[in-house]
Amino acid sequence: MVGMEETLRAMDEILAFLRTLPKKLKSKEVENFIQALLNTRRVFVVGAGRSGLVVKAFATRLMHLDFEVYVVGETITPALRPGDLLVALSGSGETDLIVESAKIAKKVGARVAAITSYPRSSLAKLADLVVTLPGRTKIASIKGFVRRELYGEYASLTPLGTLFEISSMVFLDAIISSLMVKLGKKEEDLRAKHATIE
Amino acid sequence: MVGMEETLRAMDEILAFLRTLPKKLKSKEVENFIQALLNTRRVFVVGAGRSGLVVKAFATRLMHLDFEVYVVGETITPALRPGDLLVALSGSGETDLIVESAKIAKKVGARVAAITSYPRSSLAKLADLVVTLPGRTKIASIKGFVRRELYGEYASLTPLGTLFEISSMVFLDAIISSLMVKLGKKEEDLRAKHATIE
Amino acid sequence: MVGMEETLRAMDEILAFLRTLPKKLKSKEVENFIQALLNTRRVFVVGAGRSGLVVKAFATRLMHLDFEVYVVGETITPALRPGDLLVALSGSGETDLIVESAKIAKKVGARVAAITSYPRSSLAKLADLVVTLPGRTKIASIKGFVRRELYGEYASLTPLGTLFEISSMVFLDAIISSLMVKLGKKEEDLRAKHATIE
Amino acid sequence: MVGMEETLRAMDEILAFLRTLPKKLKSKEVENFIQALLNTRRVFVVGAGRSGLVVKAFATRLMHLDFEVYVVGETITPALRPGDLLVALSGSGETDLIVESAKIAKKVGARVAAITSYPRSSLAKLADLVVTLPGRTKIASIKGFVRRELYGEYASLTPLGTLFEISSMVFLDAIISSLMVKLGKKEEDLRAKHATIE
Repeated sequence: MVGMEETLRAMDEILAFLRTLPKKLKSKEVENFIQALLNTRRVFVVGAGRSGLVVKAFATRLMHLDFEVYVVGETITPALRPGDLLVALSGSGETDLIVESAKIAKKVGARVAAITSYPRSSLAKLADLVVTLPGRTKIASIKGFVRRELYGEYASLTPLGTLFEISSMVFLDAIISSLMVKLGKKEEDLRAKHATIE
Repeated sequence: MVGMEETLRAMDEILAFLRTLPKKLKSKEVENFIQALLNTRRVFVVGAGRSGLVVKAFATRLMHLDFEVYVVGETITPALRPGDLLVALSGSGETDLIVESAKIAKKVGARVAAITSYPRSSLAKLADLVVTLPGRTKIASIKGFVRRELYGEYASLTPLGTLFEISSMVFLDAIISSLMVKLGKKEEDLRAKHATIE
Repeated sequence: MVGMEETLRAMDEILAFLRTLPKKLKSKEVENFIQALLNTRRVFVVGAGRSGLVVKAFATRLMHLDFEVYVVGETITPALRPGDLLVALSGSGETDLIVESAKIAKKVGARVAAITSYPRSSLAKLADLVVTLPGRTKIASIKGFVRRELYGEYASLTPLGTLFEISSMVFLDAIISSLMVKLGKKEEDLRAKHATIE
Repeated sequence: MVGMEETLRAMDEILAFLRTLPKKLKSKEVENFIQALLNTRRVFVVGAGRSGLVVKAFATRLMHLDFEVYVVGETITPALRPGDLLVALSGSGETDLIVESAKIAKKVGARVAAITSYPRSSLAKLADLVVTLPGRTKIASIKGFVRRELYGEYASLTPLGTLFEISSMVFLDAIISSLMVKLGKKEEDLRAKHATIE
């Protein structure tokens, strides 16, 4: 009665979108990103709003994997140094404070990895490497996403950055898997680092 | 070379898991949850670690929908009152501080909605309503998930609460869609409330 | 043996500095700030690092006093609207992301109250009203603070923004007192709004 | 006109209270605390509400001093290990989630340092070491504070935990000074670690 149908339909939309994710990934971009993570001594992450939450979820797992990782804006985040990697997540690539953060990072000599739907955005242009993830911040970004034609109400089912945020979460958790394999880490290794007080 | 293959395989696992999500949802639970959200004056959310991030992403969208919503532990979160709804997210349903939070909420006369993989957990038992979401905190939770047999390394591909956290994010974003339909909200309405400074 | 003497000496320095605070306050600035708080419908606060923590402590008490108040960067912070008041705290008045936030606020038509040691800083220039609080970000800011001459190690006893941050905390808690008097609020009223789950 | 008088009077109250702070400190407690900080490999801090903000301000400076320090509840906080030190700040010593956190820490074999006004509180009883700081959570805590007799409205001038929170901030910043002296750190050393992006 109250909402099961709409819930399932929205879930269907999200899953349909996610199914297109693997073939939209660019091999070169993904591999550069993994390489950059493996090659840096310290990773910093930054994102605003819901994108900030997704990038924090990624940082948690990097910590589990024994990376030295920091979240911009949290209490114990130290100064960036040359050679550090800043992972900046922004669907539009135009979020003011994120672009500003990337500029500061570049000034300091850190490298910037941008995860965005817009490879020509201000953030992407500043970045040393880019991972392009599909989203739907502007109409152009869903060109070719045929299901949209079937459901007129598509836009309202997954408002604003929803699809980018979920795609990012799935993508970054897949990256964690890759790193586990590369680093020979098992689930028990991660569990051993999992926060005790919560 | 470096990780594209593993990335795709992990993504495949996550998507395979998500595909099973719709049919695992219990209609009654979902509808009770939506009804509880629509019937309450104020929503509080709580979760620890990555589950905390997922429930914050939900709170952001509830705010966009004009709900009065608060995150336990953030700066401006006021006292709970009888009639408030606490949405508590915990895969295991045994996270100490979350169970403790739910106990406090019950003492005050608030209602508790538990989102968990374990309908018999301490959290679920305390709760007024439960939404059971699949996860893989213990082996039992993936019974019937056949792909596991195909990939021996399954466990390491999506460590710890990963599948529960992604499932929750997708589920809660689908709930937002339902609420949009119920409340007649359009994407423009949400955009108008979207944080300006970020 | 281990540090009691140094602890007391540092405390002495801090208290000596705080004693000079009341006579450094400018009546007009303080009254404008209180008036601005009383006249606005919604208050937003922003600050970076330890200044961010101080301004959050202020926001908590504003919430206790029934103000509608939000912290920039937290989960449920909505869009700024014309007429909102942004309270921005920065000792130097040059903190990048805070100056950027103030710019965005001005663009939207919100008012900005700057709390800073530098009334000619970028932040102060952008602001509609300024409260000048003593600090010691640069040497000039402690001109006339005679105790410095007595203790050569002064600078190291209260490093970086320490004195500004403590001064701000004391000042903003005194502002809360003023607001309580103006609004006829008693401690019981604040206690009734104090977060239940913590 | 609007509030300058009340602001100054409240500030006066706070300063009068702070003046009593040095002679209320117990040498033994302070020295044990400093020793514990110097002897541990990793420090974790925890506090709720405004006390949480004060303890985060302390953590920031510990990071500047090259301590390995974490805030309970933040993104990259790892598992506690035997030998870690948990610094728990609670005026009443009865804050639910803080007492619960201390219990978990003890179970794991970590040490707990309680900073509280109540040396007989649940938190203090659990703790390996206690620092007693004056506050005014209950009437007993201000016995002997004579200015109270002069201002009937005292209680409303510094509501709830205000005096404890400010005392803690001043005390912990004085501890930072002691640590700087012990460790031979200068302001420049701290500045070098100060967050770049803010």
